[in-house]
Amino acid sequence: MAEEKLPTRAEDFAEWYNQLVIKADLADYAPVRGCMVVKPYGWALWENITSWLDAEFKKTGHVNAAFPTLIPLSFFEKEKEHVEGFSPQLAVVTHGGGEELEEKLAVRPTSETIIGYMYSKWIKSWRDLPVLIVQWGSVLRWEIRTKLFLRTAEFYWHEGHTAHASADEAMEEMYRILDTYEEFCLNEAAIPVFKGPKSESEKFPGAQITTSIEAMMWDKRALQSGTSHYFGQNFAKAFDIKYLDRNNALQYCETTSWAISSRIIGAIIMVHGDDQGLVLPPRLAPIQAVIVPIYRNEAEKAKVMEVADRVFQELKDAGIRLKMDDRDNVSSGFKFNDWEMRGVPVRVEIGPKDVEKGSVALARRDRPGREGKSFVSQDGLAATVNSLLAEIQTSLLQRATEYRDANIHEPKDYEDLKRIVQDGWAFAYWCESTECETKVKEDTKATTRNIPVNQPDQEGMCIVCGRPSKRKVYFARAY
Amino acid sequence: MAEEKLPTRAEDFAEWYNQLVIKADLADYAPVRGCMVVKPYGWALWENITSWLDAEFKKTGHVNAAFPTLIPLSFFEKEKEHVEGFSPQLAVVTHGGGEELEEKLAVRPTSETIIGYMYSKWIKSWRDLPVLIVQWGSVLRWEIRTKLFLRTAEFYWHEGHTAHASADEAMEEMYRILDTYEEFCLNEAAIPVFKGPKSESEKFPGAQITTSIEAMMWDKRALQSGTSHYFGQNFAKAFDIKYLDRNNALQYCETTSWAISSRIIGAIIMVHGDDQGLVLPPRLAPIQAVIVPIYRNEAEKAKVMEVADRVFQELKDAGIRLKMDDRDNVSSGFKFNDWEMRGVPVRVEIGPKDVEKGSVALARRDRPGREGKSFVSQDGLAATVNSLLAEIQTSLLQRATEYRDANIHEPKDYEDLKRIVQDGWAFAYWCESTECETKVKEDTKATTRNIPVNQPDQEGMCIVCGRPSKRKVYFARAY
Repeated sequence: MAEEKLPTRAEDFAEWYNQLVIKADLADYAPVRGCMVVKPYGWALWENITSWLDAEFKKTGHVNAAFPTLIPLSFFEKEKEHVEGFSPQLAVVTHGGGEELEEKLAVRPTSETIIGYMYSKWIKSWRDLPVLIVQWGSVLRWEIRTKLFLRTAEFYWHEGHTAHASADEAMEEMYRILDTYEEFCLNEAAIPVFKGPKSESEKFPGAQITTSIEAMMWDKRALQSGTSHYFGQNFAKAFDIKYLDRNNALQYCETTSWAISSRIIGAIIMVHGDDQGLVLPPRLAPIQAVIVPIYRNEAEKAKVMEVADRVFQELKDAGIRLKMDDRDNVSSGFKFNDWEMRGVPVRVEIGPKDVEKGSVALARRDRPGREGKSFVSQDGLAATVNSLLAEIQTSLLQRATEYRDANIHEPKDYEDLKRIVQDGWAFAYWCESTECETKVKEDTKATTRNIPVNQPDQEGMCIVCGRPSKRKVYFARAY
Repeated sequence: MAEEKLPTRAEDFAEWYNQLVIKADLADYAPVRGCMVVKPYGWALWENITSWLDAEFKKTGHVNAAFPTLIPLSFFEKEKEHVEGFSPQLAVVTHGGGEELEEKLAVRPTSETIIGYMYSKWIKSWRDLPVLIVQWGSVLRWEIRTKLFLRTAEFYWHEGHTAHASADEAMEEMYRILDTYEEFCLNEAAIPVFKGPKSESEKFPGAQITTSIEAMMWDKRALQSGTSHYFGQNFAKAFDIKYLDRNNALQYCETTSWAISSRIIGAIIMVHGDDQGLVLPPRLAPIQAVIVPIYRNEAEKAKVMEVADRVFQELKDAGIRLKMDDRDNVSSGFKFNDWEMRGVPVRVEIGPKDVEKGSVALARRDRPGREGKSFVSQDGLAATVNSLLAEIQTSLLQRATEYRDANIHEPKDYEDLKRIVQDGWAFAYWCESTECETKVKEDTKATTRNIPVNQPDQEGMCIVCGRPSKRKVYFARAY
């Protein structure tokens, strides 16, 4: 019954990831090409992610709504870049109720079009603005290669769609959401990110500006972990979203859209995971602490379980998300490995000696082995565990930030850049031309990630062509 | 700007409903045949419904997960009744990523098949049982006629799917969920329901037993408001869901599935709504109280808003879901009508005289006009409003129960039954033959609703054929 170990990250990072997702019980492959099943443990993690984001959005006046899963194909053709970007990825419904449809329908790959259509019906006056709607659900973009959470045909997300009276207000919204995404990554997922606009070539189809948050995985590749787009009047013109301003003049709206998807679970795995398996940040972990009672016979069991049950109740009452592992068909060692694989932040071990001494052993997941183990009093255990959870949360972010920063380098010249991006990120001035960006991509497979909002004071020279450049960009190979 | 009134319920109930859904801002028609858009106000109501149910399910050990939206067509063919029931309703994806698919995919109409397939992979031993998974999302069943919330191609729901070691346990689960549904209807939606098994002909395709909760609408038609099914081993055999029992013998699982959909919003509208619009039960209302400040000039406004803002903060701090209507472009009368249309349970009016007297006017939505209006002190207002909300909740259930019970009759004979179901429900002995059920349907359009679990002690004679009958059933025309 003992599970096979994962390959180490250094041996085979891709295989480590694929096996971990299955063994940590997060997800499974579906019998539909490119699709996944998110298992209860993975979904509980997603629920913790979504409930924080949902509460944040609501604090800033956003409301949720639901638009159809199926979108007429003709809708995509109303915005030129949008149709070019999404057409190749559509799943198309051609038959309904046993008959061929006159108008074919796409399973939504994103909902700008149908939401834009509805906004054009709903928005009449400046008094109706802003409209700040979020939809939670899944979308489908045809994929043949599957990598659970990172690349699947169907994935889960929220999509925010807002309409505003002015460009300033729409851009402010785009950046407000980007800040929320950053806050989520830092405080909840313990993942440091850079935020800022993407290059022209990396924009969302139809956007005037696409901003992103970018995170570094353990293998030093980048993962775009959230995006927030400003469309200007592109979609408003395509879908005729107009309002009467205060002077009774008809104006086009300015719109945005933004999303974080279930891909973020891939980021959590690849930033924090170790060779023993998943390591979850306590604030998002479905199970924050697991209690493992240890005994060799019925007499010991009775004594140990009495304490374990009491401790369970105390921790539960303190609001800790908790699991008692009282399985009698596996060894304690198996249990330890099992919960380490699933990334539970804290393990509480209680054996006969602990009962005598009034203590328990705490093992913190982020530091496996002796180093992360401490023996503490049963008195005030809930407070002890809560402060350990907070410490782990802080420590994960610190470790990830140090790791990331140690692997970002400022290239001296183009040759240096080519070397750096083989095993890290390069941060360099860039003239913002597609030509130079393409050259880097062709030479190294690295792409521009984003132009961070925090920039040095002075200007410089493009690392590729040497022309004057105002802003630095991150170059990295990416998922 | 004043909105047109609704037709009265007595004038045209169907048209009253259709207009109410739009004017109360709950939903809109989508540009996809048969589909709806659930607007933010309607979705907030749905979120209050789902969050109560989700919490209840979790209390009894259920967990959430996500399975693909697209299901191979071949999966439906594995269960004979299931494919017959659902084939005519499927939306079929034939193309993906620009190419014709080898295996066609259905947009899920329900997920027994794909979840059954996954269960057959996951379930190995009696130790893995029970499996208690719920999926939240939408499903699609092709519809041409659209009635928002009641009949749409895509609708929102949860679908619970459970697998058990024994038939007893599976049936217990089916009834446990039915009890939860009843509790939801009574305590949250303030809708009385009858619960019990459906007839053979009204079963879910593939079920051995289908149970339902049935509610009476204002027009005395029945609405099936939730269902819970016991499949026996039908799906386990179709999808090979087997486990090793304690004696190491391979056994088929016993499975259930159950659902409440966004149709329940239709029930809330049609049970509680009145000629002024929607009437929401306080426990589900997205906005429980609206504050309308009343003033004629700037001097009055300053005084009134000071009190209104203070009251707003007090009620908000007390956990009341609250809205301040400080629009300056519409009259107070317009606001009153507007919030009545949206069914907000309590309106708090504050005018200059109230400021002087330290009072406010409370208007309860369930009793429009003078009768429902009271003048109360600003002191302790949060407690006053909270107890009024509780009183409205109780009162709505009581009114709906009295109305329902007054419109259910026990027919003396078959002629009497035919008369009764023209404008009410008949509760009568029935021999449980499809023949007699069909005769009633053909003669009156009334169908059997369910055989309630609470039955009289003695037996009787079938109201149709006169044969001995053990149980009574509800006959009614239904949505």
